[in-house]
Amino acid sequence: MGARSLTTVESHRAFEGEVRRYRHRSDTLDCDMGFACFLPPQALAGQKVPVLYWLSGLTCDDTNFITKAGAQRKLAERGIMVVCPDTSPRGCNLPGEDDSYDFGSGAGFYLTATTEHYRDHYKMDTYVTQELPQLVAEIQPHNTNQVGILGHSMGGLGALNLFLKNRNQYHSVSAFAPICNPTNCPWGRRAFEGYLGPDEAAWEAYDPVCLLRQTNLDDLPPILVSQGTADPFLEEHLHDWALPKHANIDVRREPGYDHSYYFISTFIDQHIDHHWRILQAGAANP
Amino acid sequence: MGARSLTTVESHRAFEGEVRRYRHRSDTLDCDMGFACFLPPQALAGQKVPVLYWLSGLTCDDTNFITKAGAQRKLAERGIMVVCPDTSPRGCNLPGEDDSYDFGSGAGFYLTATTEHYRDHYKMDTYVTQELPQLVAEIQPHNTNQVGILGHSMGGLGALNLFLKNRNQYHSVSAFAPICNPTNCPWGRRAFEGYLGPDEAAWEAYDPVCLLRQTNLDDLPPILVSQGTADPFLEEHLHDWALPKHANIDVRREPGYDHSYYFISTFIDQHIDHHWRILQAGAANP
Repeated sequence: MGARSLTTVESHRAFEGEVRRYRHRSDTLDCDMGFACFLPPQALAGQKVPVLYWLSGLTCDDTNFITKAGAQRKLAERGIMVVCPDTSPRGCNLPGEDDSYDFGSGAGFYLTATTEHYRDHYKMDTYVTQELPQLVAEIQPHNTNQVGILGHSMGGLGALNLFLKNRNQYHSVSAFAPICNPTNCPWGRRAFEGYLGPDEAAWEAYDPVCLLRQTNLDDLPPILVSQGTADPFLEEHLHDWALPKHANIDVRREPGYDHSYYFISTFIDQHIDHHWRILQAGAANP
Repeated sequence: MGARSLTTVESHRAFEGEVRRYRHRSDTLDCDMGFACFLPPQALAGQKVPVLYWLSGLTCDDTNFITKAGAQRKLAERGIMVVCPDTSPRGCNLPGEDDSYDFGSGAGFYLTATTEHYRDHYKMDTYVTQELPQLVAEIQPHNTNQVGILGHSMGGLGALNLFLKNRNQYHSVSAFAPICNPTNCPWGRRAFEGYLGPDEAAWEAYDPVCLLRQTNLDDLPPILVSQGTADPFLEEHLHDWALPKHANIDVRREPGYDHSYYFISTFIDQHIDHHWRILQAGAANP
């Protein structure tokens, strides 16, 4: 896969850095995909910088974070690159692909599907953890020992799962209003049945609460979770109370905040600094 | 006009303040309108706060600034309310209203139209300077001696015009990439012919460069204008070079920045602080 496989769609100067959107053919997903990134001024000046992967939620694409989270100011200050993939394969003409907001397009759940039709395209975990980093390396040499992952809602689920399953690849993690226990909520159960089939045992491989039960929590770096108390999806779908109680899992309930990017923009600086502190310490002790 | 005329469409906590969107029947424009605002925490706590009016550019509505400018952090820090009107009347079923992006819907140019059809609805200057402040006063008591106005592109033109024509109402002004000299650019000439008719003498009442020629520049507070050098509309439509050279008119050319909200978000903190300094000084000497 050469650099020529990437097409630059947009490029905008921001905070002395640059916002870019790319399109490319994805071998993993067998469709065309897009992603956005922000290169801080330090990267444009040739420095190797830390990278954060942002995973968006249901109905989003690669643009939501980069246009609405207000993160570039702090990313430029800290010298951190961010990469924002789309939330699913697109335009694969699968049965039911575009029928609802919580399954198919815009709802890839960052997993490898095993059901008929979907297994040929829906492999968002492999895309994010393997294909995308190769593309990012073409764009900008960066510190592979300083890589964090974070996300929102379905993307918070994705960030926790990919972090817990790829501990050598990701060094820090955080989440806004993640779907914590998808095997026990309607969004998760519907998606897992559609992508993984009726055997619920197979679903646990993509449930953060189940994965954390199999993890020595003392070995984890601090995990930051922000959750608004006025989030309309908290009771039915998000279930932050199901996360284990442990000193390394810092669940911050924020009074009055909802599920929107207004919530994310308010606390994104805290999350960037959370990653920055861990990644800086990791760089000092590679 | 009672408070019952306002309908709250959305409300979101942000930076300990609140983003709100309202709908209402506009007597001035004879149609339904929407606007957005941000109430900083100081306002929610009952303090009278300064108010900034943000005027958006072509194709925008009341949501662009509040979702993409990343201004709430600084507005909350300074304790300033922002109010964002829509850019034109909507849904009036006028001939040509929805045929192009630079005339009619989304392109009201903050003026009072005199041509057939449009004169019945297109009075965005009266709406912004008279009707909207009454609605804002219902939402939040504020300091009427601490009111600023700013905007982007067509809205930068609007901010400069409304400030220069209503010096007792607005105490500070700034603009991002304003259409400085609309009587001399295609966007302006097309809009002015459509709204004001062929008599070009009438157009000068809505041209910031013409208005500044009639103004004692020594009497003005400092005016801040930010203009990206990579703005694709600079040469044909914006013409910052036509603004008079004077110590009170600070035109900042920003290398590599374009016309997008990425540009606005980078420099919005500078603009908020520009207004804050002037409005603070005014409050000290009412």
